[in-house]
Amino acid sequence: MPPPLHVAFLGGTTGPWETISSTAVVGPGLEPVPRLAVVEGGDAVPEATWTLRGFTSNERYVERAERTSLVERQPGLGRAEAEAAALIPIRKSPAWWDLTQDERRAILEDRSQHIAVGLRYLPAVARRLHHCRDLGEPFDFLTWFEFAPADTDAFDELLGLLRASEEWTYVDREVDIRLMRSPSAG
Amino acid sequence: MPPPLHVAFLGGTTGPWETISSTAVVGPGLEPVPRLAVVEGGDAVPEATWTLRGFTSNERYVERAERTSLVERQPGLGRAEAEAAALIPIRKSPAWWDLTQDERRAILEDRSQHIAVGLRYLPAVARRLHHCRDLGEPFDFLTWFEFAPADTDAFDELLGLLRASEEWTYVDREVDIRLMRSPSAG
Repeated sequence: MPPPLHVAFLGGTTGPWETISSTAVVGPGLEPVPRLAVVEGGDAVPEATWTLRGFTSNERYVERAERTSLVERQPGLGRAEAEAAALIPIRKSPAWWDLTQDERRAILEDRSQHIAVGLRYLPAVARRLHHCRDLGEPFDFLTWFEFAPADTDAFDELLGLLRASEEWTYVDREVDIRLMRSPSAG
Repeated sequence: MPPPLHVAFLGGTTGPWETISSTAVVGPGLEPVPRLAVVEGGDAVPEATWTLRGFTSNERYVERAERTSLVERQPGLGRAEAEAAALIPIRKSPAWWDLTQDERRAILEDRSQHIAVGLRYLPAVARRLHHCRDLGEPFDFLTWFEFAPADTDAFDELLGLLRASEEWTYVDREVDIRLMRSPSAG
């Protein structure tokens, strides 16, 4: 388990990722930007149209058997073939945060199979979760996904399953930003 | 469940709390300071000999039945009679953070009764937990306790039980700072 990594996502005119689409799934969207940069580490970041910050942390729900399956199958970020990416910021409702640990786990996995569904799309879809509610940010989580363009349909299927789950009834804001790696203008 | 509150603990020469003792329980201590100030909110804080930062957050382990008991019995901070306080920063080892959620819960409560033991000392001892590992701070948690001076023995008994638990074998740094409210010099 690596130590927490602070990551800033900068929407603006620079960065190696070109925006393909930005969709407000639930609640208000984010201002459309041509490019996105991802800055790792806690340092000061350049000005941008918008900046979303979060940190990786210890897993909040994963149990041992699930960790074993995840570690066996989950790829790292930065694979050469993974030229498509998505940044999906979500916020969960106050009702979610009022639940206790056992109730959140029951909804997230026992009834929504969030972890099990995600496993079915490994190793095609690499994923890194960033927490941000505790920073007072506008979203609670920023999830970053990387996959080969040919796996876009599979990725959409994964999102469809999650969005149809009981867990997602607690999502009160979600934006879906699709990107393609395009280093030339970086 | 209130939204996360960012809190800074400033060890120095000002603030309403006078230091009675500062003990390095495990690992290096903190530089002794005559007074402590507690600043709530994310704003800039004045210079101090040392500053420890953390945030309140959703509970990571508490289940519904435990929450019900806690809510019934736990007092708020700032009671007039609670003139004694303690700030106990702890860090847990990499081995703790490598555990999965089910393993951490089993150690924390099933085998160490952290929540159940704490309940026995309510409502005498008020407590607020601040998380800080995710901020890259030197400690993982800052716990702030307030109690009447007459309850100091009970508070010491509570700490003794926790420090003898299996959970505490994962604590690799702990400092125990005792304070008394002393507004005159604040």
